[in-house]
Amino acid sequence: MEEKCGVFGIKSRDQKPLAHTVYYGLYALQHRGQESAGIVVNHDREFYSHKDLGLVSEVFSQEILQKLPQGNIAIGHVRYGTTGGTLRANCQPIEVHHHKGNLALAHNGNLSNAQRLHKELEESGAIFHSTSDTEIIAYLITKHRLKEKSIEDAVSRTMGDIEGAYSLVITSPTKMIAVRDPSGFRPLCYGETESGDHVIASETCALYAVGAKWVKDLEPGEMLVFDEKGVTSRREYCGRLPKHICIFEYIYFARPDSRIEGISVHGARLKLGALLASASPVDADIVIGVPDSGLDAALGYSHESGIPYGIGLVKNKYIGRTFIAPSQENRVDKVRIKLSPVRSEIEGKSVVLIDDSIVRGTTMSRIVGMLREAGAKEVHVKSSAPPFLHPCYYGTDIDSEENLIACHYSEEEICKKLGADSLSYLPISALSRITGGDDFCAACFDGCYPVSHCTVPMTDPSAPIT
Amino acid sequence: MEEKCGVFGIKSRDQKPLAHTVYYGLYALQHRGQESAGIVVNHDREFYSHKDLGLVSEVFSQEILQKLPQGNIAIGHVRYGTTGGTLRANCQPIEVHHHKGNLALAHNGNLSNAQRLHKELEESGAIFHSTSDTEIIAYLITKHRLKEKSIEDAVSRTMGDIEGAYSLVITSPTKMIAVRDPSGFRPLCYGETESGDHVIASETCALYAVGAKWVKDLEPGEMLVFDEKGVTSRREYCGRLPKHICIFEYIYFARPDSRIEGISVHGARLKLGALLASASPVDADIVIGVPDSGLDAALGYSHESGIPYGIGLVKNKYIGRTFIAPSQENRVDKVRIKLSPVRSEIEGKSVVLIDDSIVRGTTMSRIVGMLREAGAKEVHVKSSAPPFLHPCYYGTDIDSEENLIACHYSEEEICKKLGADSLSYLPISALSRITGGDDFCAACFDGCYPVSHCTVPMTDPSAPIT
Amino acid sequence: MEEKCGVFGIKSRDQKPLAHTVYYGLYALQHRGQESAGIVVNHDREFYSHKDLGLVSEVFSQEILQKLPQGNIAIGHVRYGTTGGTLRANCQPIEVHHHKGNLALAHNGNLSNAQRLHKELEESGAIFHSTSDTEIIAYLITKHRLKEKSIEDAVSRTMGDIEGAYSLVITSPTKMIAVRDPSGFRPLCYGETESGDHVIASETCALYAVGAKWVKDLEPGEMLVFDEKGVTSRREYCGRLPKHICIFEYIYFARPDSRIEGISVHGARLKLGALLASASPVDADIVIGVPDSGLDAALGYSHESGIPYGIGLVKNKYIGRTFIAPSQENRVDKVRIKLSPVRSEIEGKSVVLIDDSIVRGTTMSRIVGMLREAGAKEVHVKSSAPPFLHPCYYGTDIDSEENLIACHYSEEEICKKLGADSLSYLPISALSRITGGDDFCAACFDGCYPVSHCTVPMTDPSAPIT
Amino acid sequence: MEEKCGVFGIKSRDQKPLAHTVYYGLYALQHRGQESAGIVVNHDREFYSHKDLGLVSEVFSQEILQKLPQGNIAIGHVRYGTTGGTLRANCQPIEVHHHKGNLALAHNGNLSNAQRLHKELEESGAIFHSTSDTEIIAYLITKHRLKEKSIEDAVSRTMGDIEGAYSLVITSPTKMIAVRDPSGFRPLCYGETESGDHVIASETCALYAVGAKWVKDLEPGEMLVFDEKGVTSRREYCGRLPKHICIFEYIYFARPDSRIEGISVHGARLKLGALLASASPVDADIVIGVPDSGLDAALGYSHESGIPYGIGLVKNKYIGRTFIAPSQENRVDKVRIKLSPVRSEIEGKSVVLIDDSIVRGTTMSRIVGMLREAGAKEVHVKSSAPPFLHPCYYGTDIDSEENLIACHYSEEEICKKLGADSLSYLPISALSRITGGDDFCAACFDGCYPVSHCTVPMTDPSAPIT
Repeated sequence: MEEKCGVFGIKSRDQKPLAHTVYYGLYALQHRGQESAGIVVNHDREFYSHKDLGLVSEVFSQEILQKLPQGNIAIGHVRYGTTGGTLRANCQPIEVHHHKGNLALAHNGNLSNAQRLHKELEESGAIFHSTSDTEIIAYLITKHRLKEKSIEDAVSRTMGDIEGAYSLVITSPTKMIAVRDPSGFRPLCYGETESGDHVIASETCALYAVGAKWVKDLEPGEMLVFDEKGVTSRREYCGRLPKHICIFEYIYFARPDSRIEGISVHGARLKLGALLASASPVDADIVIGVPDSGLDAALGYSHESGIPYGIGLVKNKYIGRTFIAPSQENRVDKVRIKLSPVRSEIEGKSVVLIDDSIVRGTTMSRIVGMLREAGAKEVHVKSSAPPFLHPCYYGTDIDSEENLIACHYSEEEICKKLGADSLSYLPISALSRITGGDDFCAACFDGCYPVSHCTVPMTDPSAPIT
Repeated sequence: MEEKCGVFGIKSRDQKPLAHTVYYGLYALQHRGQESAGIVVNHDREFYSHKDLGLVSEVFSQEILQKLPQGNIAIGHVRYGTTGGTLRANCQPIEVHHHKGNLALAHNGNLSNAQRLHKELEESGAIFHSTSDTEIIAYLITKHRLKEKSIEDAVSRTMGDIEGAYSLVITSPTKMIAVRDPSGFRPLCYGETESGDHVIASETCALYAVGAKWVKDLEPGEMLVFDEKGVTSRREYCGRLPKHICIFEYIYFARPDSRIEGISVHGARLKLGALLASASPVDADIVIGVPDSGLDAALGYSHESGIPYGIGLVKNKYIGRTFIAPSQENRVDKVRIKLSPVRSEIEGKSVVLIDDSIVRGTTMSRIVGMLREAGAKEVHVKSSAPPFLHPCYYGTDIDSEENLIACHYSEEEICKKLGADSLSYLPISALSRITGGDDFCAACFDGCYPVSHCTVPMTDPSAPIT
Repeated sequence: MEEKCGVFGIKSRDQKPLAHTVYYGLYALQHRGQESAGIVVNHDREFYSHKDLGLVSEVFSQEILQKLPQGNIAIGHVRYGTTGGTLRANCQPIEVHHHKGNLALAHNGNLSNAQRLHKELEESGAIFHSTSDTEIIAYLITKHRLKEKSIEDAVSRTMGDIEGAYSLVITSPTKMIAVRDPSGFRPLCYGETESGDHVIASETCALYAVGAKWVKDLEPGEMLVFDEKGVTSRREYCGRLPKHICIFEYIYFARPDSRIEGISVHGARLKLGALLASASPVDADIVIGVPDSGLDAALGYSHESGIPYGIGLVKNKYIGRTFIAPSQENRVDKVRIKLSPVRSEIEGKSVVLIDDSIVRGTTMSRIVGMLREAGAKEVHVKSSAPPFLHPCYYGTDIDSEENLIACHYSEEEICKKLGADSLSYLPISALSRITGGDDFCAACFDGCYPVSHCTVPMTDPSAPIT
Repeated sequence: MEEKCGVFGIKSRDQKPLAHTVYYGLYALQHRGQESAGIVVNHDREFYSHKDLGLVSEVFSQEILQKLPQGNIAIGHVRYGTTGGTLRANCQPIEVHHHKGNLALAHNGNLSNAQRLHKELEESGAIFHSTSDTEIIAYLITKHRLKEKSIEDAVSRTMGDIEGAYSLVITSPTKMIAVRDPSGFRPLCYGETESGDHVIASETCALYAVGAKWVKDLEPGEMLVFDEKGVTSRREYCGRLPKHICIFEYIYFARPDSRIEGISVHGARLKLGALLASASPVDADIVIGVPDSGLDAALGYSHESGIPYGIGLVKNKYIGRTFIAPSQENRVDKVRIKLSPVRSEIEGKSVVLIDDSIVRGTTMSRIVGMLREAGAKEVHVKSSAPPFLHPCYYGTDIDSEENLIACHYSEEEICKKLGADSLSYLPISALSRITGGDDFCAACFDGCYPVSHCTVPMTDPSAPIT
């Protein structure tokens, strides 16, 4: 199952040290996935790759980067770590050896008909080495490639087979291909560097990092083919389905300096904060955000409400993957190590505390406690997302329903559990103010799934080879 | 030569997994030093240690932490990385085997008479294994220990020999000792946990992280001795010299949620921003800080000036020690990867841009360029510190004079080099508003060195064994 | 392409820490492959594995072994390192997820019709992740599994498709299956432990290492199926082809304490030495072997000729994979570091120098030089194998023809190049004395290939994805 | 406490990549110490070093070697791993920073008055960072250096202070100095390369490995000083004490291809085997040695007795430091994995089994069992060393008395414990046949300690800082 991920690709006319460029692009997309990272360089039709579990900084050393040859196409991927399946075999980009031409693919998204396709392919003799949707896509492209006369035709045929969320970057021996699914669930944008290199990335922040200028977002259903002649847009799947960009990209997932569909993510979050202020005003002395994800909305709330914005919580920026969580025996609280209150900002004040969302509520409850301990008179908790009530089948790793606090308790009960003086969520109705329409998917909040899906997870039968 | 560092110690009545507690304390002090980390556990008079180059997260794995035994005293250290001398031999705490009793020391600061002491000790036959001041202190304590009847008397005698900045945590076979130099250059505080464990730390944020309550800051010249009877304060060096806390701890070095000498660091930075606003007002649309060090002052500037506070720059939080900086060949700009502007906040606006200080000016010049590129109408650069003009001899790693831009150019010239519309620094005279007196050291700004020092570096003669 | 490898498998009635047993078995087979190692544990139908590039000692740490769960089947593999293709993807055992039941395979050998099968499978839509024959076998088993009613039937059908050399150990969810090809190119034996566990291994030395008693060698074409009922022998391919055990297993490849087809490998080598003494007698003072591979034949030569056996060369036993070979600049000779003469044994003597074979002749020429330098009066070189003249297509990594010295020079010329006083090889005709018949393959010496093969390497078209 | 170790040094007229040469020299000396390895390069009076725990191959990578600069002196050390004290701080060469000139030392041996010196130095204020004798020597040289006018005078004065076994290689800013103790306990030899570089090594095998010709062994008490003028021999300590080369160097410790005091080590072992055959003849079918240490003596026994030499045991050459020993649970026998019998050589035969010595007897008892299992009719165990009865104080790591089987049981009882048909040791009286006189130390066998020593271990008081 594919989850939140980031993809990046670059095509240049000449052989260049593109692995380095992809490395910097992936650094900019690291927030989209911390489980694994990988780069494939296409050097004169031969592919050279490195991928492993870990952050970009852990997977790539100077030595490893330098061993990758120059090339004129290179693609990369960062993968989000979900509980359990951290398989090295799932690292992307996936590579396929084939006498019709090799192929490497990086994928962000989640196919909603993966299970059926997987079963059909196995029935026809296919062997799967990973549990990822990406391998299904690779199989389908390969199958169609045997009959179609070009790789882009094979990709197009594959788009007819697969359903759900997918943003893809592919390198064939001579072409780079970028694809966004017809619903446009996941973002994907295209830019150009001064020297004329073509760049594809999940978010505009990665274009910026490598010195590329944004040209356009891929339209839902669009395929861009980059070859020696330049860029070709294939649009046979454009308009087939209504657009449904994932609203949670704006709320939490994307980086604030990115623009998605022309809308600034930071701007969207300011607006969420402002909408929250209008929807649930409260009388308070200071507005603070939970760093880093709640800061933008907190500032928006402050602007709209006139309540001063403060820096009331400090985050320890050194806590990463290898942090050893305290055990019971240590009597040390993990949340206190990660976050600590600025007493001088909090003491004796009525505080509005904003985070992007409330999932299990455990961390938020600890934070409220810390603020009280630091002398807060009142703590009013605000979530810049509506309550999570439904699972996501399109590539966002929302916690399972049994852990979603909003599935089990009323707002009042949750407020009590958090120890807060009040609790409010952004109303679902306010979401349309972000994109200015209903062209988004908010299934995790409202349960309206724009594309059919299967609720039985595919991994059950073929199971935990770890 | 010792540089910016963090020290931590804990003493408990019973044998406990104190290595874990020190680990969490060092995590909270990681901002004070990223070159090396170390922990020594005193288990029933025997010392067990682990220390190495790297971040706390890199030096300590679960396995390593678990191999350290329980103990009733444990001390730790994080060390700042200066260019060049990243020697494993310099990792702290330093350990001394001796038939009069073993000793382990962690030190933050810089002796100003190190050179003379080093030479005298060598003349008497001493061998040095490291280039650190800490080894000098260890030698002196050992020498005095041969004649004095207690370890604390030996430490006291040593305080009579050494000059400059030092905050020390020491474990002998049965005691934990904490010492702050008579000028009080570096902070050092004492707290207690609910279960009655005594904790010493460079900053209060580390007390908080391990669940300890602040009891007091050590007074300049004070020694605290923790043994089976409890705590004893020895004050023979208190009041010998006027207090001179390093003002740069408030401006930049300490964590904003810490309190030093009862003053909130975040609060001090808000005040610096406000003072800057009064001293050099400007007409602008938005105030933004360079993350993370300029954010607090930017907010203070906004409060004072009434100009709205904005989040105009996003920092890539994944860039760490192992980041591979781009070479010329890649045509990628390192600053663009680390920081990127939020165009929607900047475009068409007159921007006040605040950072804690300006050292070489190279990064600031790149940031000004990025803001212009993002559409800023005007960029007014403000530094919440006065210009750096003098080297520090008391343990802060200010760049060498030849690199300090303020040593070579006028404010006007620097403004031009930065490409800014205006440039202003905090006036030196404003610094006394932070502590409310002249009990601080601002030698790096005003050249007034409160304790004599030698300007020829000690490392010249004994030289680069690397 | 599969090369010299070792396979191991164990099935127990109960859940046991079988990963450890496989670990010890692979240690005993390490001489058969040093490039990669892997273990798959079947824990109640779920597979848990670890495999990576490196020696068994490098791939498996205590921590990794302990993370592998107990199981009632476990299989393992060591893989030989050929120049070039050290791909992590080629590590074995190979694992296949499939709704009809998972599968893991370890393979020793080389299919001679791999190319054709690979192409056919690709034409039907298959994707290959590795360049190994093993993946072809996995595909075929999977394909047949869809139609056959048992896994053993699917394996049997697969045996009808593949040609060449293969010794396989397979685990399905409930069964362990061992297969030896109808020509019996590679050895494979079956043993039992005292507690009744069934063990499969490439060589008897691995049975011994894990405390198992040898029961039988698998017959050429035999399949052993181990399930809850016990062992079943399937013999539908037995006798289909004449037996052709690789003679080089006796000469060099197997460990001297192993028995293959009931013949002691050490005994075979003593005999090779004795045959060499009869075929090419020489008057000399001492017989020495090149350690370790020439020692057994040298002793046999001594016994037959009556010339005293000596220890004339000492091998540095610490030189392994990570040894940094000297560059030109160092003026140090790699052979001198690996081997050095015992002057007191050599000086003033006429020496018979025996090695198992002569491939390029470069090392041998250096050794002859070292012996002369150490004072040898005469050096008579003897090879206990005939000259290498032909490539191997059945899984032994003989150097390419262009490097085989015997393909380009006469014996006399080679003798001169080696700087020896005389040179003799074992006559091909003597080989039948080892097995007592012509039931062996000696294609690398005589060019008689018992099974058809294709000389164009499969890897050319699908190429170097590295 | 120093144990069995190897030292190496090289001085060249010009700057060269000497670190590589030392690397190859240490590879040749690896058998003398596997715990740690280190190299110090003297580049134009500045020292650059790398040292760590592990084998030479583990401590030095290509990257690390290349980072060490060229130099005109370089020294190296390998250290033997004793139980317990594997401290990184004990890695050698030791380096001393001092304004009179830096110093690096590599030491093989064991001071017998270390305890007293250590105490005296501590009383005068010295701090010890390691538990090694080498640091004592470094202190003494430094102390004397303050008064003497040259480094060689300071070393000479130090030789007057220290007692016991020491072979030293030292680099000062401009000189390389080699020293052998007046008793000559440990070997040390001097050679030259073709290009005129001077080389010092523990054994001649290391000279050979780097292409140097043996010039001479240092005489007991001799100091060689290498400077820009060439070599100077200082002999003020020569002849002060009778020579006492450690006899165990010949029996076991040195490499068979080395020559010590002009005597071939392999030749000495052949003679030990022959002496054993004369002293305790037995009627048998075959003589086999325990690989690798018993092979030379077994061949000598065969030559003298006329009983054929056989290869009856095969050693697994891949078992190294990281081998995970089997636990009880695995029911696998560690000795079976390390060694296995060649049944065809053993079955039905009366076997003479030779090893260099018998320490605890546990392995030997397992080997006898394996031979019986393999069908041996009789097993006659012979040790080419006399029984170990006394501890060594001069640098050989003999097991503690409580573990020495010969201290607790009669020969008859031991024979029974081993399960052997007979047992014989080399008579002590035969040892003088090796060197042709009584100029050796055999204290571990006969209890005659040529230099006084203290039996209370130094490490007790200053204790386990680990």
